[in-house]
Amino acid sequence: MRDHFEIRDHDAAGRIGELEVPRAGVTVETPALLPVINPNIETIDPGRLRSEFGADMLITNSYIIRTTDDLRERALEEGLHDLLGYDGAIMTDSGSFQLAEYGEIDVTTTEILEFQRDIGSDVGTPVDIPTPPDAGRERAESDLEATREALADAEAVDVGDMLVNAPVQGSTYPDLRERAGREAAATDLDVFPVGAVVPMMNGYRYDDMVDAVAAAKRGLDEDCPVHLFGAGHPMMFALAVALGCDLFDSAAYALMARDGRYLTVSGTEQLEDIDYLPCSCPICHEHTPDGLRAAADGERESLLAEHNLHVTFEEIRRVRQAIRDGDLLELVERRARGHPAMLDGYRALLDHVDRLERVDSASKGTFFGLSHESARRPEVRRHHDRLARLDVPDSLLCSEYGEPSDHAFDEVWRVVPPFGPFPRALSETYPLTAEVPDRTDAAAERAAAEGVRALAEANPDADITLAHRGWGADALAAVPESVTLEDLSETRA
Amino acid sequence: MRDHFEIRDHDAAGRIGELEVPRAGVTVETPALLPVINPNIETIDPGRLRSEFGADMLITNSYIIRTTDDLRERALEEGLHDLLGYDGAIMTDSGSFQLAEYGEIDVTTTEILEFQRDIGSDVGTPVDIPTPPDAGRERAESDLEATREALADAEAVDVGDMLVNAPVQGSTYPDLRERAGREAAATDLDVFPVGAVVPMMNGYRYDDMVDAVAAAKRGLDEDCPVHLFGAGHPMMFALAVALGCDLFDSAAYALMARDGRYLTVSGTEQLEDIDYLPCSCPICHEHTPDGLRAAADGERESLLAEHNLHVTFEEIRRVRQAIRDGDLLELVERRARGHPAMLDGYRALLDHVDRLERVDSASKGTFFGLSHESARRPEVRRHHDRLARLDVPDSLLCSEYGEPSDHAFDEVWRVVPPFGPFPRALSETYPLTAEVPDRTDAAAERAAAEGVRALAEANPDADITLAHRGWGADALAAVPESVTLEDLSETRA
Repeated sequence: MRDHFEIRDHDAAGRIGELEVPRAGVTVETPALLPVINPNIETIDPGRLRSEFGADMLITNSYIIRTTDDLRERALEEGLHDLLGYDGAIMTDSGSFQLAEYGEIDVTTTEILEFQRDIGSDVGTPVDIPTPPDAGRERAESDLEATREALADAEAVDVGDMLVNAPVQGSTYPDLRERAGREAAATDLDVFPVGAVVPMMNGYRYDDMVDAVAAAKRGLDEDCPVHLFGAGHPMMFALAVALGCDLFDSAAYALMARDGRYLTVSGTEQLEDIDYLPCSCPICHEHTPDGLRAAADGERESLLAEHNLHVTFEEIRRVRQAIRDGDLLELVERRARGHPAMLDGYRALLDHVDRLERVDSASKGTFFGLSHESARRPEVRRHHDRLARLDVPDSLLCSEYGEPSDHAFDEVWRVVPPFGPFPRALSETYPLTAEVPDRTDAAAERAAAEGVRALAEANPDADITLAHRGWGADALAAVPESVTLEDLSETRA
Repeated sequence: MRDHFEIRDHDAAGRIGELEVPRAGVTVETPALLPVINPNIETIDPGRLRSEFGADMLITNSYIIRTTDDLRERALEEGLHDLLGYDGAIMTDSGSFQLAEYGEIDVTTTEILEFQRDIGSDVGTPVDIPTPPDAGRERAESDLEATREALADAEAVDVGDMLVNAPVQGSTYPDLRERAGREAAATDLDVFPVGAVVPMMNGYRYDDMVDAVAAAKRGLDEDCPVHLFGAGHPMMFALAVALGCDLFDSAAYALMARDGRYLTVSGTEQLEDIDYLPCSCPICHEHTPDGLRAAADGERESLLAEHNLHVTFEEIRRVRQAIRDGDLLELVERRARGHPAMLDGYRALLDHVDRLERVDSASKGTFFGLSHESARRPEVRRHHDRLARLDVPDSLLCSEYGEPSDHAFDEVWRVVPPFGPFPRALSETYPLTAEVPDRTDAAAERAAAEGVRALAEANPDADITLAHRGWGADALAAVPESVTLEDLSETRA
């Protein structure tokens, strides 16, 4: 058990948790967003991050501090918290990013962890090797071995009560990501960043990001707090949380602001293209687009950075609320419509339905049918698994139209796409309290047909009739021949 | 031509326009939201509506004023603007709502319009008959006749420079809605409310709302400003604007606040269920959920009303920006995932693709493939119409994989679901600059196959080969037999 992380609530593979950071004396509620502070360029005063934006944790780079003479001296003398003027928890990166970017750095895991400890970091990071996507297998494996050694070195350092990250690498090889996750979870380290996903996100490869995280999660234990390292665009928080990520960090808020870019939950806009501000944050409430454009460069950058942070933290709160309400997958549905690559990400998430099904709550908020993709949700899978275990009477009518006034069946069950049939006794239980569109779709009909098949195959001797509202050929092809079909769409429409 | 309404920009059937309200000396930019002010209960000081929320127009009820002694006297003496303390444009309702609710009112169109003129209303309303959904045909027709007479009476009143509403009724009968629209457009009245849609929205019948508005729009002229009367939930603005609605009015912000309800762009939450405020408006920025709950009743109601207005106006700005960016249908996609009934509404909108196609811009922002529904968008329809007019060489390869290094075809065209084939020369033109998911879907493949069919049927003598990425049976069934098929998904994957 990792006793500094406690899960309070969950939905899909997402959860609300509490990460205790003993050295800071701070408990960070997750999902959490850690603003990235470049110790050389302060876009927003770190002190304001906690009081105005609710950031209980931030992340800065100990490698930059160590290699910058005056920062190093001040950090060692005053401590990191005074240096930054921030009283929340501080995570420090190790220089792995610089290693990946420039090919070499002049510090070992032991040295950088001791330095992080000495400057008062609350969560330190060893020097892992971020292998980029699509690297050769051999390179990915040898990098992973170096990361494994870095984790072993990290375990040997006396870090006091500083928590330590155990990064999970493995490029785009699911088996390597899973193995790396298993090895990281076997250490006594504390927080588990999934690394080197930034190039995937920069390339809008959200489906690859999903597969990498899902593989890492298969290796990690459920009680491991997981950090999606370098992920700070609010567009993808819901998706990443639904996979089981707990921590995010954003340099995007500042980097985008520098380029005149304005974040939204469905993408990034150029300030110069905005005629109407689609936001009510204090910055957008008090300014017009022209007013923002007319501000002096530094002022504009800082205003944009504040907007970007507001929309980012707003989305973190929205994701937490969705977990509380049990409608996180509904939020993922909405975010999937922000960009085609996000839809790829959602479709990839649904490829991992078996894992989602295992960890998802059995009962939560009302299930909403919101798309063809909804038919692939874990709740549908779970209902079909249940159908395969249900006994039915000798003669059963499964009907989309409810019970006929006069019939000779032993029982009548309702049929609701995408779930399929269910006995009356289950109709008030989750997920069968679902709200689904009146105008159903082929995917929902097909899933309902698969439910009928599961039931019929589990009860080969039963005489089952299906009364449907004009299902398409694809759905009807999934119904076993033993089931009698009645198309009631014309007589009952 | 209706010279007080000018269309500045458009997308799908939605538009950004300017409604000149001469009596107020105010130009209202549309889409616009008119907060409803109950003259007896002021939840928010009307003066703040313009300065803080940007509301250039509000709506209040002249019938309530006329039947409340002290309000009537003050309105006649001071004028409506001083009575409310509001210097924007004021629209007044007539008592039709009370008529629908209580069955009778004691005022005629002529009387109420003269009263509205006398108290200084900027946009008046006759006494039309709001026929509820699913009313009998006979009733709907006789109500419509009464509304037609009310419009004729209204035309006869000397209203000075007050604009006058010409409501469009007709219950759930598309032909009556269309006829009512045609008759309203034939008057010299000014603004065109589509009436009696509130019961549809209260019943989450967004598809019926879509059909009613689409029918009314068929009868109205394109230059008629259209008011979706009683529609104030931000969830449905994008959908209604995409249909061609320009004005909305919200009593919801205040009524919901009274019941402790908190609006979002994807639905309504109970304040008591909220643990994290999913919003950054000034109210949500300065309060916690507990803080809001702990406020005194009146204070809480007023804070909630302000939040509700912020999120409402934010969505109006977002819709305008989407029209400017040419991605209004992408916003409709997102909003359709707020509730299954909104998805029904979007699916219903796509039933009117022919009309959308006629009014939509030929070129705009990048088309995003965001769902199975995207395959039914007007841009896809238009491309297929174009394919049916294109000439092809004697032998043509249509390929999802680009041009093979070695081939004997006269030409090679790209194939992109949901559009289908297109010649290289069109690949930089809208909508073929589309971004679509890598993980395509059956609906997109099927639409692409219909594109192939359109091309093949227009060129019966051409020798066409289709190289596809493993399309499903449904899509392949739509490809004519004359087309040679090559499944490259296994050799090229």
